Amino acid sequence: MKKIKINASILIIGNEILSGRTQDLNVSFVTNWLNLNCGIKVEEVRIIPDIEKKIVFNVLDLSKKFNYVFTTGGIGPTHDDITATSISKALKVKYVYHKKAYEILEKYYGVKKFNIGRKKMAKMPFGSSLILNPSSAAPGFKIKNILCLPGVPSILKSMMPNLKKYLIKGPLTYSKTIGLITYESNIANTLDKLQKKYISNVEVGSYPFFRLGKVGVSVVLRSINKSAIKKCEIELLNNIKKNKIKIYKI
Amino acid sequence: MKKIKINASILIIGNEILSGRTQDLNVSFVTNWLNLNCGIKVEEVRIIPDIEKKIVFNVLDLSKKFNYVFTTGGIGPTHDDITATSISKALKVKYVYHKKAYEILEKYYGVKKFNIGRKKMAKMPFGSSLILNPSSAAPGFKIKNILCLPGVPSILKSMMPNLKKYLIKGPLTYSKTIGLITYESNIANTLDKLQKKYISNVEVGSYPFFRLGKVGVSVVLRSINKSAIKKCEIELLNNIKKNKIKIYKI
Repeated sequence: MKKIKINASILIIGNEILSGRTQDLNVSFVTNWLNLNCGIKVEEVRIIPDIEKKIVFNVLDLSKKFNYVFTTGGIGPTHDDITATSISKALKVKYVYHKKAYEILEKYYGVKKFNIGRKKMAKMPFGSSLILNPSSAAPGFKIKNILCLPGVPSILKSMMPNLKKYLIKGPLTYSKTIGLITYESNIANTLDKLQKKYISNVEVGSYPFFRLGKVGVSVVLRSINKSAIKKCEIELLNNIKKNKIKIYKI
Repeated sequence: MKKIKINASILIIGNEILSGRTQDLNVSFVTNWLNLNCGIKVEEVRIIPDIEKKIVFNVLDLSKKFNYVFTTGGIGPTHDDITATSISKALKVKYVYHKKAYEILEKYYGVKKFNIGRKKMAKMPFGSSLILNPSSAAPGFKIKNILCLPGVPSILKSMMPNLKKYLIKGPLTYSKTIGLITYESNIANTLDKLQKKYISNVEVGSYPFFRLGKVGVSVVLRSINKSAIKKCEIELLNNIKKNKIKIYKI
């Protein structure tokens, strides 16, 4: 059976990313992980501040436009962690303790050290399913097509395998990178023709690079169809051979 | 005269960022630069693919919502560089050679090597002003409240001083970070009260960290009002002293 394409968006919630204080590392990880493990393609990312009405608007907007929305950040114990309350408001459901999450956290911290801040991490939109957290116990959650993850990259990474069961799989996107020792403008015409020919099934990308004093171009062919990539690659290689452009070997 | 607040958004255009192939480095640089040099606050970032209708929609949407939109990527010589054509369509203006940009590029490459791909980099929406490029000649452009920059971080960085003249300056946002050796949940209540008290003029952020085996929290106070930060800081320090929480010294 042919798999249908599944797309997703990532909503990064956090003043620390927007202020430039923290370098985001989650986009490239989540994107690569989703493609490799589930054949899901991320088609938009938004980074927004910890402001309720912005979270409400963007969660609803993205959940309508894409098959899945992954949020990162804002599910910790402090006042600026407002992802769970905001999503409850967006979906018009109650913001309540999740019984299982409460039990997990109470066991993890022990009854005496299970303070108000920590209890807050067991509250989420009514009807959520848990995304278990093997690093620091506090679970993420899934409600409708929205999956909420923490912002700390190491914790987020450890939780990804636990959300796999909630996702419908799409076709894997393959890619082939060919490094060329040339200027982009010298192969612009070739690539333009190639993209037009393969418009239906291969995405041809061109990215200049400067490595060890060499100027070059990485041509990236991406497709869910491996043989289309191969055909397109052969055509590109023939053309660059004709034009006496050298391949860049890493 | 009191400066009015100026906000901005960044629109990152590029399949290579969305596919996870390339780690974005421009958001934190542009955000920090805009704050430090112009007192402009970035309040939203979007990352979208090289698809004309998505560029058109997002450029128009963000240019309505924010004082400035900074785009990165898609102004090179190849077929997947469609930022300039898309913005021309969005603004319903012609996509034409900019006389001065053409002269700059022709001089830089020499008449003989000024091929079609390179000439493309002189085309932009009619009525644009140039953002000069001291690294690789191809200029960015400004039209209305939209400022278009390249995606390559080193080139983008070199161009930032050249767009300063187009921007109205706002008040600088100051920040103070206080590292604490504690768990977030132990100070959640303190920070919640502090944020409520200073809701009108200080943004209180809380970010857990794990460094050299130590677990801690960075509390970040941000405001355009330096003395409000100082007041808020003193109150925080008194409180953590009372609660016997240690300061983390770097």
